[in-house]
Amino acid sequence: MPVINFEGPKLSIDQKRKLVKSFTDAAREITGIPENAFVVLIKENQRENIGTGGQLLADRE
Amino acid sequence: MPVINFEGPKLSIDQKRKLVKSFTDAAREITGIPENAFVVLIKENQRENIGTGGQLLADRE
Amino acid sequence: MPVINFEGPKLSIDQKRKLVKSFTDAAREITGIPENAFVVLIKENQRENIGTGGQLLADRE
Amino acid sequence: MPVINFEGPKLSIDQKRKLVKSFTDAAREITGIPENAFVVLIKENQRENIGTGGQLLADRE
Amino acid sequence: MPVINFEGPKLSIDQKRKLVKSFTDAAREITGIPENAFVVLIKENQRENIGTGGQLLADRE
Amino acid sequence: MPVINFEGPKLSIDQKRKLVKSFTDAAREITGIPENAFVVLIKENQRENIGTGGQLLADRE
Repeated sequence: MPVINFEGPKLSIDQKRKLVKSFTDAAREITGIPENAFVVLIKENQRENIGTGGQLLADRE
Repeated sequence: MPVINFEGPKLSIDQKRKLVKSFTDAAREITGIPENAFVVLIKENQRENIGTGGQLLADRE
Repeated sequence: MPVINFEGPKLSIDQKRKLVKSFTDAAREITGIPENAFVVLIKENQRENIGTGGQLLADRE
Repeated sequence: MPVINFEGPKLSIDQKRKLVKSFTDAAREITGIPENAFVVLIKENQRENIGTGGQLLADRE
Repeated sequence: MPVINFEGPKLSIDQKRKLVKSFTDAAREITGIPENAFVVLIKENQRENIGTGGQLLADRE
Repeated sequence: MPVINFEGPKLSIDQKRKLVKSFTDAAREITGIPENAFVVLIKENQRENIGTGGQLLADRE
């Protein structure tokens, strides 16, 4: 029942597949919790919805 | 001011209406906090953005 | 695999038990997703960590 | 590394720009943490995905 | 009904009071949504529960 | 600026260290985003604050 939430940019389905596999494998190995208990949620954010250093990513370069 | 966040699949507006009503009614009754204080956020996720057991939902069957 | 996150005040274990049961029952019935797929996370927040209307709950009355 | 998550309605890019700037400036000044460490995520929600007082925003008037 | 979630370090009650006031004032002014509709949640995280650049904050210097 | 949020059980500092390292390494490799841009937040939840299948973890066996 652990829940892993990933907030990042737009991704391809293959990148999502690899993220879910890698995060679940790593977390299973480190915590000993069985693979089937993990939920991973992938959130894709537009560059105008993310800010760092007080500035939108969409406004950088 | 309690906040209930629901992460699930695509839903019809009628399903959303019922979720908001049921969650708020139940939480009001159990906590004694007035109905008007509750915020419910519904997040609809595509099957390629959810992973369980190390696999995307979009890749199952 | 839906995830329900509840942000509220301190609760007794019996209130938590009832919240988890009510939310899961309602969501199962409305969405048709089996009960075992639901994860509920309960977050208990101190009154000095919640603000409404620009003011901490801890500062009200 | 603080993370500020804003859940609200649809916004213009100019509103987003101002939110990111204001939140980061205020948080830097209050906490003393340098501006570059802050991440702001803006989540735009449809009126049928937000409920208050047990009712969808989309159903109000 | 917008919800602002702040994930950061341990804070004094006075810092929390100022964060809630500043965030709410800025968001009200930028969005036009009335002050009473805003909820702010402050989450205080220990240094061993935050990682940046692949390393726990607790392990830096 | 991607943010990874892990909701799970109580963990040792060594487990946290390994989670942060593994998640960041995997996400860097899969997305191509530099390591320094990643923030990982680890949330430790008590067994009475997590429900699955309509039941608190604290009430199982």
